[in-house]
Amino acid sequence: MLKTPLRLGIAGLGTVGGGVLQILAKHKDTLQSRAGRPLVTTAVCARDKNKDRGVDLSQMQWFDDPCALAQSEDIDVFVELIGGEDGVVRQAVEQALASGKHVVTANKALLAHHGTALARLAEANKVALNFEAAVAGGIPIIKTLRESLAGNEISRIYGILNGTCNYILTKMQREGRAFADVLKEAQQAGYAEADPTFDIGGHDTAHKLAILTSLAFGTEISFDSIYLEGIEKITPEDIQAADDLGYKIKLLGVALKTPSGIEQRVHPTMIPKHSAIAEVDGVTNCVAVDGDFIGDIMLVGPGAGAGPTASSVISDIVDIGRGMIRPPLNTKAEQLTPYRRARMRAHEGGYYIRLSVYDHVGAFAAIASRMAENGISLESIVQKRPPEALPGIDARGEIGAPTPVVMITHETTEAAVRAALESITADGHVENPPQMIRIERL
Amino acid sequence: MLKTPLRLGIAGLGTVGGGVLQILAKHKDTLQSRAGRPLVTTAVCARDKNKDRGVDLSQMQWFDDPCALAQSEDIDVFVELIGGEDGVVRQAVEQALASGKHVVTANKALLAHHGTALARLAEANKVALNFEAAVAGGIPIIKTLRESLAGNEISRIYGILNGTCNYILTKMQREGRAFADVLKEAQQAGYAEADPTFDIGGHDTAHKLAILTSLAFGTEISFDSIYLEGIEKITPEDIQAADDLGYKIKLLGVALKTPSGIEQRVHPTMIPKHSAIAEVDGVTNCVAVDGDFIGDIMLVGPGAGAGPTASSVISDIVDIGRGMIRPPLNTKAEQLTPYRRARMRAHEGGYYIRLSVYDHVGAFAAIASRMAENGISLESIVQKRPPEALPGIDARGEIGAPTPVVMITHETTEAAVRAALESITADGHVENPPQMIRIERL
Repeated sequence: MLKTPLRLGIAGLGTVGGGVLQILAKHKDTLQSRAGRPLVTTAVCARDKNKDRGVDLSQMQWFDDPCALAQSEDIDVFVELIGGEDGVVRQAVEQALASGKHVVTANKALLAHHGTALARLAEANKVALNFEAAVAGGIPIIKTLRESLAGNEISRIYGILNGTCNYILTKMQREGRAFADVLKEAQQAGYAEADPTFDIGGHDTAHKLAILTSLAFGTEISFDSIYLEGIEKITPEDIQAADDLGYKIKLLGVALKTPSGIEQRVHPTMIPKHSAIAEVDGVTNCVAVDGDFIGDIMLVGPGAGAGPTASSVISDIVDIGRGMIRPPLNTKAEQLTPYRRARMRAHEGGYYIRLSVYDHVGAFAAIASRMAENGISLESIVQKRPPEALPGIDARGEIGAPTPVVMITHETTEAAVRAALESITADGHVENPPQMIRIERL
Repeated sequence: MLKTPLRLGIAGLGTVGGGVLQILAKHKDTLQSRAGRPLVTTAVCARDKNKDRGVDLSQMQWFDDPCALAQSEDIDVFVELIGGEDGVVRQAVEQALASGKHVVTANKALLAHHGTALARLAEANKVALNFEAAVAGGIPIIKTLRESLAGNEISRIYGILNGTCNYILTKMQREGRAFADVLKEAQQAGYAEADPTFDIGGHDTAHKLAILTSLAFGTEISFDSIYLEGIEKITPEDIQAADDLGYKIKLLGVALKTPSGIEQRVHPTMIPKHSAIAEVDGVTNCVAVDGDFIGDIMLVGPGAGAGPTASSVISDIVDIGRGMIRPPLNTKAEQLTPYRRARMRAHEGGYYIRLSVYDHVGAFAAIASRMAENGISLESIVQKRPPEALPGIDARGEIGAPTPVVMITHETTEAAVRAALESITADGHVENPPQMIRIERL
């Protein structure tokens, strides 16, 4: 047991920072034993010195400027819990690393945009850059990728990485309600921001996915090349049709190795409803990994919140206490390969397609032909009217209200599905733009 | 990067040992980078030198005796993949530790019976004793408990820890078949041993639970005090009734901190069917942990098999390569507290009770009285005949075939339920001994 304490400088005393101070206080003795040395917070930095945070800060040096804290001689670890991808926070993290401080951060935006450069800087200075809390809150996916899966080549990593989206989709599914309605309620309940775009548009999921992709595949982080679709377009009809067909709809982030490069995509996804991931409901997150020896594993847990996020921050600090320094992005920065993007049009998989078909003679035959022309075969077709009223089969030849038709395709390509849907739309047999949701094989 | 290789001596070249050699060969370069030094297998030990294992062993020293390998000067790590709780294997592991070798083992029986003493020996010799593969195969639960959850006090750990039992229960549930029938098929398919007692009786689960309990609660390992019930008594009627009531039946190992001590129990358990753990089907395993800051997390993955188990062994070896030595049982051996057993009769929870009730006048009233006498209130009662035929309500007063009655109790104690069921049985209103299955709160 080392007697020298590990000196922590904590920047940001919001929800997570407060949680970290609480854990350090409550589990002081256990942590000393687990880290092999005392953990002592010597300095903190936040905006408002006078705010009551329910923790005694009198023994800690106060900084108004994160950069000053980052370079302080009185800390060994700079714990960055402010957030934000640029400006003073980025500068502070860079200065901490450059001045030989270990860095622990929960900042996914910073890593998604500058993670490769920061990893290089950390390695050059022989310090740790740990960020377990940056992806999926309390779920120990960073440690699992860096350490537990060391003996595996990863072929895919995917997960439910945003609690707001999962909460909204769960509510829509359980209560049959519309997106806008549930979003409003989620905002009132504090599960969604006043401006929810960042969450529901999939951007937050993409930040986390960008980091996971690098750790899983040994590539430089490439946030900008992620294919992105949010959950705004999902309707109660889709959720009901998915249920009828044995699926649930979740917003997934998926990174997949293909012969032409790595797919990184964030979009609503149909998954079999009888699967563990389909039961990951509400604000809970999960991450699944396919490896060549381990097969498939999945980690489920809270993706946000003071306690879970602080728990991950503490785990990172304890590792530093133990002298554990690994390459931040799993692969040494100098050996990371440039990210090679697989074209989204080459994506292969099954598709859910929902059309609102005019009750024209021949409409359905025309649709079926367009699918066939593009080499798409159908696994199932569901339409809610009785079979005798199927458009194109109806002998009366009358134009009625549009009929909803739902199709599940066999394995095909994104290019084929897009081409088919463009032709179908151009043919004029459908009322609205077709709905299309990708199916993920589990 | 250290240039000195980490020299491995592998004892046992069966399925798992073969898997380890395969990973070491296939991912040699990545592993060198992740371990920070080359990993080299310098020696092996197995029963039959001439068996073809599909791996080139010519560069490795051959040992017939595990004890000789354990003490060889040419290894740094003794990798024990033979199995068995005593005899030469225990001796070899002790000799390896005593002679300053790190030990990596997949041997749950050895740890469940002698883990505390072995941890002490490892610490005294300042070497690692790693056993990620001993519990739940590929699932990184040991690392998660030792490292990721360092900032948490654990209140409960539980899981599906035996693939054979989960496979049988899944088949029974999906196909409505009887236990004996499915067991026979599982034996033919290689999912169950010729003598299945060790698995279906819950002993294998108990081995793993004993290890997890120590890691979670800082107590000495206490295998013998685990309360044990196997899955033999589960019938298709129970599975159907569980489904009707919104539950699934799984064999769980559960360790729980209570005011009077720690409960360690292995028994068939009812869990809500709409939960991620309920969808952990077939041979898949899972482990869930409740911590004071992280909340609830769950890890799901393959609980056995060459690849997953070998993957865990490799992760343990890589940690040693990195110079990572932590107390094997998470808490330092000298600080482990004696295990204090909570009495099973004090167990609190909901219960599922299935009775086969004779169609006597007053039978049902008598049963209800016995429950009330013991302070047990009922959440629901289901009986398969129409309500007018309820025993005790039936105005005809005739004795017919016994009626199945299923009850779910509100939270109560094991002592109360046992007392009530004894009285009900003594009253003579039920045909067979009552069936009782505990409900686990998630």
